Amino acid sequence: MPLSRPLAYAHTHRQRFVTELQDFVRFPSVSAQPKHDGDIKQGAAWLANHLWRIGLEHIDIVPTARHPLVYAEWRRAPERPTVLIYGHYDVQPADPLHEWHTPPFEPTVRGTNLYGRGASDDKGQLFAHVKALEAYLHSDSALPVNVKCLFEGEEEIGSPSLTPFLVRHRRALAADVAVMSDTRILAPNRPAITYALRGGISLELEVRGPQQDLHSGTFGGAVHNPLQVLCDIIAHLHDTSGRVTIPGFYDRVRRWNAAERAYMACAGPTDAQILRDARVPKGWGEHGYTLYERTTIRPALSVTGIAGGYQGPGVKAAIPARAAAKLNFRLVPDQDPAEIDRLFRQYIARMTPPTVRSAIRTVLVAKPAVVNRRHPAMRAAAAAYRKGFGASPVFLRSGGTIPVVNTLQEMLRIPTVLMGFALPDDRMHAPNEKFHLPNFYHGIATSIWFLAAIGAQRALIPPSREQRKAKATAPM
Amino acid sequence: MPLSRPLAYAHTHRQRFVTELQDFVRFPSVSAQPKHDGDIKQGAAWLANHLWRIGLEHIDIVPTARHPLVYAEWRRAPERPTVLIYGHYDVQPADPLHEWHTPPFEPTVRGTNLYGRGASDDKGQLFAHVKALEAYLHSDSALPVNVKCLFEGEEEIGSPSLTPFLVRHRRALAADVAVMSDTRILAPNRPAITYALRGGISLELEVRGPQQDLHSGTFGGAVHNPLQVLCDIIAHLHDTSGRVTIPGFYDRVRRWNAAERAYMACAGPTDAQILRDARVPKGWGEHGYTLYERTTIRPALSVTGIAGGYQGPGVKAAIPARAAAKLNFRLVPDQDPAEIDRLFRQYIARMTPPTVRSAIRTVLVAKPAVVNRRHPAMRAAAAAYRKGFGASPVFLRSGGTIPVVNTLQEMLRIPTVLMGFALPDDRMHAPNEKFHLPNFYHGIATSIWFLAAIGAQRALIPPSREQRKAKATAPM
Repeated sequence: MPLSRPLAYAHTHRQRFVTELQDFVRFPSVSAQPKHDGDIKQGAAWLANHLWRIGLEHIDIVPTARHPLVYAEWRRAPERPTVLIYGHYDVQPADPLHEWHTPPFEPTVRGTNLYGRGASDDKGQLFAHVKALEAYLHSDSALPVNVKCLFEGEEEIGSPSLTPFLVRHRRALAADVAVMSDTRILAPNRPAITYALRGGISLELEVRGPQQDLHSGTFGGAVHNPLQVLCDIIAHLHDTSGRVTIPGFYDRVRRWNAAERAYMACAGPTDAQILRDARVPKGWGEHGYTLYERTTIRPALSVTGIAGGYQGPGVKAAIPARAAAKLNFRLVPDQDPAEIDRLFRQYIARMTPPTVRSAIRTVLVAKPAVVNRRHPAMRAAAAAYRKGFGASPVFLRSGGTIPVVNTLQEMLRIPTVLMGFALPDDRMHAPNEKFHLPNFYHGIATSIWFLAAIGAQRALIPPSREQRKAKATAPM
Repeated sequence: MPLSRPLAYAHTHRQRFVTELQDFVRFPSVSAQPKHDGDIKQGAAWLANHLWRIGLEHIDIVPTARHPLVYAEWRRAPERPTVLIYGHYDVQPADPLHEWHTPPFEPTVRGTNLYGRGASDDKGQLFAHVKALEAYLHSDSALPVNVKCLFEGEEEIGSPSLTPFLVRHRRALAADVAVMSDTRILAPNRPAITYALRGGISLELEVRGPQQDLHSGTFGGAVHNPLQVLCDIIAHLHDTSGRVTIPGFYDRVRRWNAAERAYMACAGPTDAQILRDARVPKGWGEHGYTLYERTTIRPALSVTGIAGGYQGPGVKAAIPARAAAKLNFRLVPDQDPAEIDRLFRQYIARMTPPTVRSAIRTVLVAKPAVVNRRHPAMRAAAAAYRKGFGASPVFLRSGGTIPVVNTLQEMLRIPTVLMGFALPDDRMHAPNEKFHLPNFYHGIATSIWFLAAIGAQRALIPPSREQRKAKATAPM
């Protein structure tokens, strides 16, 4: 494959690519916070314009109920496979702001890293593919495959608009393989392809007590405190061995055979590595599983926020009228999010004492996904990593959730290659998020090699119904 | 006693008194929030100026480490007793702001109530005494007693400067009786004198886990969540019967005899009344005690605030690096706050799992206080209520804490009459705090009668050392 020109182009222009990525990160495109709705719009417009400038076609900013999708394509390679490139340009909230060493939306290069909210998750990783496309289009004036780019602005709030969009446009979005980079590799020289994701449910649990805050002197000891009840409920969601106590919660959790667990033990991170990544001295959780297993083939429940009572400086001696917690389930095959949601609601209803009322609001839901490690596109990706990173990737499970992977698989029958470029210490979702710039450069090269490899894999395309029909009726 | 003139004056000027009280409430003198430090200063200056205008003398704004004390006196009644009038011009934070029907610092009269933060606690109640002094000074040009006014700006943050001030100036502050109005009566026509207060400890408990927030997908199930640990700890501070589980917590709690409990059952509010005041359908707490007993002769522990993780709109899927709770103990005789603080710290240290670290900061500490119901000043106060409110007061215990009462009693040997003018539904410390204006008017009249009654009670003054000496050495 004559790849020298795109690769040379990418190498020559890498400094400009970083500057452009900084421009991209500068948009505070926080999808969860309405105050950033305008920033999201501007980020989408910038991205669409950028895709147009590098030579993609049929650029579209698709409005949704919340934040727009950005679409672009290049379909001038008839008879070649079609690759759907997915990414998201929205980012997590930057809170707590005071913990950032440089402001989250003033992207800053320090050493070999670019710091900023979204630098890694997912603007930087998304941008590696965009720059690979540019490298082809500005050197060869052509891509080795057909490409459809779909970049959403709602991934961090659970992709509410994406599934309806995919289902409505399933024909227009038809592709042979999807690729996305929104996952982690093990280390700069240890690339990884993610083949499994956990599903999830995010919900809010509120406990309401008295109609108004009560003086804790006057009423302390005689009125049930909603904040205390909330703590009681949360405390009882796990037993002392770290297992979730919701009846039926583990009933459908798939038991993997010894071979798969042996593969995981061999390919995946050790307990020590995970502890180092998390920067904690000790692990925690369900007995009988490694930390890697606990975060991938076992479900989990995290409290991600509690708000109740007075949180300012000093003392406000009041029993709060209400208290609320944000909870986040991570689910695994074959748990059904709808069933877990129901079991949780039943359990909370049973645990709520008669002195207070509880209410639950399910915010988002996603199914788990597993991709076949032996799919030809996975082999193409592995070969591309060997060229781009100089090392063979391991196949990993991730504890995270990317709702679109399940949707693409179940609704559009498109397998997804999860081609990660992020590092475990990139602090995704945390203050001081960063992207390791060598991974950006290697990611661009890997994407260039991957597109070429897919372009060469004619066998990847199963014959379409028309072709099969034509073949069947052709005169022998 | 020729009280007709002061009483007539108070009646004539009551509308102006309300307007002045509104001016007073308008200062957002929130002692806990540094952003209001300037407002506190302005409130103190307004009050000092007001005391000067009504005719008090030796006005002083005494600086402290935080917020100034306002002092004033009138000592032109030799041979008469001296009354120390205490109150506080600082107020609780107004949060949550959105629950106020009218802004907390734009005092508004609706019906027979004045709404605003501090309207009842304690600006309105304090002001009743100020207006009683004005009524005497502007009609009779004299008071029936000597008066020392001491109004502090740190009551809501635990009076850190008051005790050192009282101890340092114990001679200058010498008085026969103290009176303060910062407590509740049962209903507009059912006045009450508080003879017991709970002590308290306010502290902050922090749990720290990973060095930074962690992605709840990547690490959920393998890392102990500080917010969950905080909930576990808080959940285990009470047993299922509502008792505090800290070992030794109840060891020194005084057991009151059957006579006292019978008096309480007779004089105090019923469970139904307390539930109605709290606007909750059901009580909670330690078995074997009425709700009145649970909030007065039994100690209590309330969680008054929790902050941890993401609390904004939508979802931020992160395990927080730390979580913190504000806790509020209410203590009773003969619990020692210092000992309880130590027992709590030992217990938390033992409960903290090795996966996280915990830290405790004690913010304020106050001892409980009990005043002798049979003291002559109590009888004078009862008589004054009968005139001012047209009803005999009951003697009540309060669940609240007024640190100065213990200090006056233990350090200066001054008994305190807790002459409440607030109603149970005044929403002290909560949104939409209000003061019942008829209680303001009756409070002024009660203060006028009380000062007259004390002035007539020469027996109240125990002979001073000099007098005793003079008597002992006088020729028979």
